[in-house]
Amino acid sequence: MSLYVYKFGGTSVGSVERIKIVAEKVKKAQELGNQIVVVLSAMSGETNRLIGLAKEIQVQPTDREMDVLISTGEQVTVALLVMALHELHCDAVSYTGSQVKILTDSTHTKARIREIEDAKVRADLDSGKIVVIAGFQGVDEGGNITTLGRGGSDTTAVALAAALKADECHIYTDVDGVYTTDPRVEPKARRLKQITFEEMLEMASLGSKVLQIRSVEFAGKYNVALRVLSSFQEGCGTLITYEDSQMESALISGIAFNRDEAKLTITGVPDLPGVAFKILGPVADANIEVDMIIQNIADDATTDFTFTVHRNDYERAKAILEATCAQLGARKVTGDNSIVKVSIVGVGMRSHAGIASTMFKTLAAEGINIRMISTSEIKISVVVDEKYMELAVRALHTAFELDKVTEER
Amino acid sequence: MSLYVYKFGGTSVGSVERIKIVAEKVKKAQELGNQIVVVLSAMSGETNRLIGLAKEIQVQPTDREMDVLISTGEQVTVALLVMALHELHCDAVSYTGSQVKILTDSTHTKARIREIEDAKVRADLDSGKIVVIAGFQGVDEGGNITTLGRGGSDTTAVALAAALKADECHIYTDVDGVYTTDPRVEPKARRLKQITFEEMLEMASLGSKVLQIRSVEFAGKYNVALRVLSSFQEGCGTLITYEDSQMESALISGIAFNRDEAKLTITGVPDLPGVAFKILGPVADANIEVDMIIQNIADDATTDFTFTVHRNDYERAKAILEATCAQLGARKVTGDNSIVKVSIVGVGMRSHAGIASTMFKTLAAEGINIRMISTSEIKISVVVDEKYMELAVRALHTAFELDKVTEER
Repeated sequence: MSLYVYKFGGTSVGSVERIKIVAEKVKKAQELGNQIVVVLSAMSGETNRLIGLAKEIQVQPTDREMDVLISTGEQVTVALLVMALHELHCDAVSYTGSQVKILTDSTHTKARIREIEDAKVRADLDSGKIVVIAGFQGVDEGGNITTLGRGGSDTTAVALAAALKADECHIYTDVDGVYTTDPRVEPKARRLKQITFEEMLEMASLGSKVLQIRSVEFAGKYNVALRVLSSFQEGCGTLITYEDSQMESALISGIAFNRDEAKLTITGVPDLPGVAFKILGPVADANIEVDMIIQNIADDATTDFTFTVHRNDYERAKAILEATCAQLGARKVTGDNSIVKVSIVGVGMRSHAGIASTMFKTLAAEGINIRMISTSEIKISVVVDEKYMELAVRALHTAFELDKVTEER
Repeated sequence: MSLYVYKFGGTSVGSVERIKIVAEKVKKAQELGNQIVVVLSAMSGETNRLIGLAKEIQVQPTDREMDVLISTGEQVTVALLVMALHELHCDAVSYTGSQVKILTDSTHTKARIREIEDAKVRADLDSGKIVVIAGFQGVDEGGNITTLGRGGSDTTAVALAAALKADECHIYTDVDGVYTTDPRVEPKARRLKQITFEEMLEMASLGSKVLQIRSVEFAGKYNVALRVLSSFQEGCGTLITYEDSQMESALISGIAFNRDEAKLTITGVPDLPGVAFKILGPVADANIEVDMIIQNIADDATTDFTFTVHRNDYERAKAILEATCAQLGARKVTGDNSIVKVSIVGVGMRSHAGIASTMFKTLAAEGINIRMISTSEIKISVVVDEKYMELAVRALHTAFELDKVTEER
């Protein structure tokens, strides 16, 4: 007998009809002889409706009360799904995060799970029940309701799968898996049968937002086999696992990209110890997230420093940087908010030389000028003018033969 | 320093604007130097919306899951009110029934409160906080969410007032107090300044549905001073208290009535021991509530038996009674579903003779035929044809000088 944790997002439980479809799917899985735990999000739109009510009352409500408010969304869906399962003559029971209980720290609206008491869930499963658990929420030691932040239902599902030692954790969503790149940009993009946790992390953080990144980290840490599937189509989705030898043959898993980048450069900075902190400290203090960072020595005495930020933060970051420039006696600040980042991701590149040169050669052949380069063990990112984005993605997709990915991958 | 428990119903928190008005009212009360606990219902319409969703999925959902579902309504309002209080710079905190915790038995959808852990609430009050608690809900020993049934927020408020030894429990509603009778029937009806628990029970059960009857019983049992007031108008409402000597002078507090009655009579029943049980047992088994019951000896060997039921149950009760009639060898079953019940209520009638005769004389003077009579220590009820209802209420209101009720009452 296998134990599965199934997680359904807001779109999958967005109406009474869809909840009934989820119930059918869960019932079928149990009838195959499996134990099933279901984790649900709120009905799509509901969390925003509740936040809307709150904002009508207070511009900045306290995080504790926001959690009390928005945690009701998942409580509604778990009750409704259990009713739908009962209607199909399945034995089932619902739990809120507090009831399970899913113990978190007290960081309201973005709490972290500390521990899951799984005794009740195990007993229910052993007695043949389907257990339906409200995602996204927990309870702290003081008994206060907490939430895990947007997308936190994925984290709940993975954490439960880890605690229960589930065979697989299925994340049902509105896409049918992880693709080699965004099919809207490259129609030849193909669904991957498998991908490693590390690749998935790079893909997710680079813009392929299929799963909440924290849930992937969690799955990797606790060795939970994660599968991304479609709620609405049949198919086996994409399995996210540890690297294994069988997969060594593939060089590159996918092409990720991020449209919302902007870059800022400060030139002629006196090259003294601590200069990076002096430049980035004020930016971090303003709660602006920095992505790529590059530092070059321009000559013996000065250095050039470039970093990228989200396009929405460009003007603020530029103003901060200009103040820093005056303070440090640097030459000037330049910037560009019409750039994008394109990355190739793959665990295979670790053991294969020439990946980077293939990438640069491919872009050069298309006449695409590379503005920045940054590399990690399993990815290479380049910054290019935004007008080249689609061209760059398609050229790389072909160059690394992702169009030809076969079913064993 | 006084401690008050304020309860606001669904209409009073039915919109963001109304929640803000409640916050203002609560803030004012605290600024007068009082400690305030607030108990809230769900926004009006919300509980029905949730029940509607459930019914789309399952005709008869389990009570446990219904409780999980509908308890979210109050959880939303408590969070929103605390936000509104914060916006007014009041220190405030929300709790669900589970968080308080309000321990109940496990009778889902109509649970009874067993115990309230008040330590957290007391500590918050002592630190200057306004404590906002979700009404209508609790938690059983297994950690399951329970609800107290419709109107249960009143019960929550009274139970909290008892546990905290509050000075008064204020029930804010859309009427500004308890009236001598329904002002829509008798425009001369006046608001009572005080009424006893016993009178209130008779008034409530007879159709003046200002308060949930269980909350009144609870208040009487635990000696909680209960006050009914309007959320929307200023005024001191009606105080519901123990009988006191000052009140002895008033004979009758009010005229209650119930439009939805129907009566059934079975005649010529062989008068044997246990006959009442044989007649009413099958009616009770069908979950039909019986109100007035009268048995007369018709002759030496047979008896006539009459009772009233809610008009909606009339046809079902009649069919059951016809089966019983055949079984017992009784003569026949007759019935009337166009009757109403009119009652005079007052603790004063205990020590005053002649109340009943005044009542009967008044009705006779108006040409109203009395079809049934039933009496208790503090009320006299008569059943009359429904066409006479308004006339009966107005005639009695005048006869017992309720038009002239003065402010000391």
